[in-house]
Amino acid sequence: MPHPISPLAIPLPALPPLAGVRLAAGAAGIRYQGRDDVLLMELAPGSTAAGVFTRNKCPGAPVDWCRAALAGGKARAVVVNAGNANVFTGKAGAAVARATAEAAARLAGCKPREVFVASTGVIGEQLPVERLTAALPRLFKAVAADGWGAAAQAILTTDTFPKAATRTARVGEATVTINGIAKGSGMIAPDMATMLCFIATDAKIPSSVLQSLLGRGVRATFNATTVDSDTSTSDTVLLFATGQAKHARVPAEGGAMLRDFARALGEVLHDLALAVVRDGEGAQKLIRIDVAGAVSARSARRVAMAIANSPLVKTAIAGEDANWGRIVMAVGKAGEPADRDRLAVAIGGVWMARDGGVVAGYDETPVVAHMRGREIDIAVDLGLGRGRATVWTCDLTHGYIDINGSYRS
Amino acid sequence: MPHPISPLAIPLPALPPLAGVRLAAGAAGIRYQGRDDVLLMELAPGSTAAGVFTRNKCPGAPVDWCRAALAGGKARAVVVNAGNANVFTGKAGAAVARATAEAAARLAGCKPREVFVASTGVIGEQLPVERLTAALPRLFKAVAADGWGAAAQAILTTDTFPKAATRTARVGEATVTINGIAKGSGMIAPDMATMLCFIATDAKIPSSVLQSLLGRGVRATFNATTVDSDTSTSDTVLLFATGQAKHARVPAEGGAMLRDFARALGEVLHDLALAVVRDGEGAQKLIRIDVAGAVSARSARRVAMAIANSPLVKTAIAGEDANWGRIVMAVGKAGEPADRDRLAVAIGGVWMARDGGVVAGYDETPVVAHMRGREIDIAVDLGLGRGRATVWTCDLTHGYIDINGSYRS
Repeated sequence: MPHPISPLAIPLPALPPLAGVRLAAGAAGIRYQGRDDVLLMELAPGSTAAGVFTRNKCPGAPVDWCRAALAGGKARAVVVNAGNANVFTGKAGAAVARATAEAAARLAGCKPREVFVASTGVIGEQLPVERLTAALPRLFKAVAADGWGAAAQAILTTDTFPKAATRTARVGEATVTINGIAKGSGMIAPDMATMLCFIATDAKIPSSVLQSLLGRGVRATFNATTVDSDTSTSDTVLLFATGQAKHARVPAEGGAMLRDFARALGEVLHDLALAVVRDGEGAQKLIRIDVAGAVSARSARRVAMAIANSPLVKTAIAGEDANWGRIVMAVGKAGEPADRDRLAVAIGGVWMARDGGVVAGYDETPVVAHMRGREIDIAVDLGLGRGRATVWTCDLTHGYIDINGSYRS
Repeated sequence: MPHPISPLAIPLPALPPLAGVRLAAGAAGIRYQGRDDVLLMELAPGSTAAGVFTRNKCPGAPVDWCRAALAGGKARAVVVNAGNANVFTGKAGAAVARATAEAAARLAGCKPREVFVASTGVIGEQLPVERLTAALPRLFKAVAADGWGAAAQAILTTDTFPKAATRTARVGEATVTINGIAKGSGMIAPDMATMLCFIATDAKIPSSVLQSLLGRGVRATFNATTVDSDTSTSDTVLLFATGQAKHARVPAEGGAMLRDFARALGEVLHDLALAVVRDGEGAQKLIRIDVAGAVSARSARRVAMAIANSPLVKTAIAGEDANWGRIVMAVGKAGEPADRDRLAVAIGGVWMARDGGVVAGYDETPVVAHMRGREIDIAVDLGLGRGRATVWTCDLTHGYIDINGSYRS
């Protein structure tokens, strides 16, 4: 990893063992040398699965495989490699995903459809599957309950720091654990980066309930973040429940019994999603954008994303310029209902513009100080309705151009 | 203008006089010192008008004024200033636009609604209208038919070169002239930049016909270009016909008599739109993107725009990296119908990827040579239908970050 560690990096939390999950990382030499590039996550019999995937219409073969596998709702193993994304590799790429799952299934003693696969790295090159499958037997021997830290490292590509999060939650009489790891550094850079996230819990939750919880959680976290507006062909979030915790049966509709679990899952997803933004390519500042007063939550979200994806807003923040004019522009370009003369804009909690003009007596001093910090808060009130949304992004800097505009070696 | 002239700049063509149009540029000191910052275009009695404006929902006061004035279909004068955009200036801003038009109308001997105004520059600051109106009397005295070159200069902000185009066309028995000038350097940078374009012809064309011609022409030119995906609050294209040429009456439906005029107008718009992209902030390369095989023209256009606005595609081209994987990603993220396994991608006329994978025996040598040039051609065939579209953009470089990420002075 040639790039310096992001100034927004956070320390890797220690992830506790979690009943029913054992992990091992190893070096298969798929592209990188001298580092781990394969992760095996082994799950206890009876584990359930849920997944959310990229909306890109040209997904990689592993995404196709996982989508199909998810129909069974059960999981026994996950195999992840870094260095080659197995994307735009035609029928051969689909065969690679299948061969990986079949090899792991033989070792795990399960069906291939109970194995999930994910790949991240270069696009358009055939993945040397024999290196991957050759590494599996020793990984199955090496799996251990304390392998989370090494797992978080093995899946990185252009990331500058490993990403993990953990929480506990009450489910009935039991306290369950939720552990998650993620990688990602841009929404995508098909040469090297994509966003992958693997979460597990020892709770016992039917796959249909798990899927519903994950879908809602991702919407408010990973799908409320953007680095560069580009969408990976491989983005994958998988959630597994091993069912090893001792608690009463969760009803099919989930409901009140899972309220605290949903809160904890949301926090894990939030931490991991923000860790990805904190590692955004070239990022120097983490930006939170709150939009209120929109005609609907959907409209608020679109306005917030238009601000978050505006190169002019992002470069202004990189330059520590409290340029509310560019925020007004971005609100207007979203195409959502907005009234110039009701609009209000705040940075760092200071309202600078209101009712179609600069706030009378506006003092830039506290805003200038806020702009010099690492975490920037932008608030917009459209003054039209009750729709709200929050999204996160990072600034657009010379570092982004350096990382993405350099010649391929 | 502190930035070096774009390497993609083209020489300013000499614009011939055009019967019924006289121009004058002058220095009003609105923001800039030591340069012209106001343009007056005086139009002969009977001139008709057409206009196309930004779709931004927070437009500037001059855009509101022009939209209302256009209802009359007639024009006698245009007043343009650089240095202050009169955007997000509330009711005071609307009064400035009105006061400017009223002052010019008194001098021109016409109604205020026959005066069009446009402003470009900083946002959120009150335009010192008295400086603008004080400059008008001497501009009305100085107007001359050969003022086009000075006019093209006076309206610039962050532009690094002036932009003009001219064509002749046959209308009935007459040869008419079309002259145009434009300014623009990003789709927007509300501190300084926006896109303004003023075109005039001596043909005699009813305003309704003129509006229809302009709408179609802009769609294939200005609205098929993007620098940074941001949309100015002030974008304005105005077209005036002075009716001084001697030709038979143009029918209300336009039709065959205006076929050659439409061709020439399209060429003027094309030249000016591409000049703006060539002056894109930090641009080092002009990029043409042709999408074919889409399910519809509208779908092709959306796919082409997704490629043109992808930071990862634009930085790859800045780095002279023939990274077709990022093009595949951008096709997929457009959300339009696309089949990974039918997709084909070419750069510089060389098909690199086809049917879901790399072309067998693909030789990168000619593509590498093409990537080193100033004009980059990308072609995508979706293999689904007959929809086609072409759009233009520029690369994303350190220069863009320098221009937009620096502290405001």
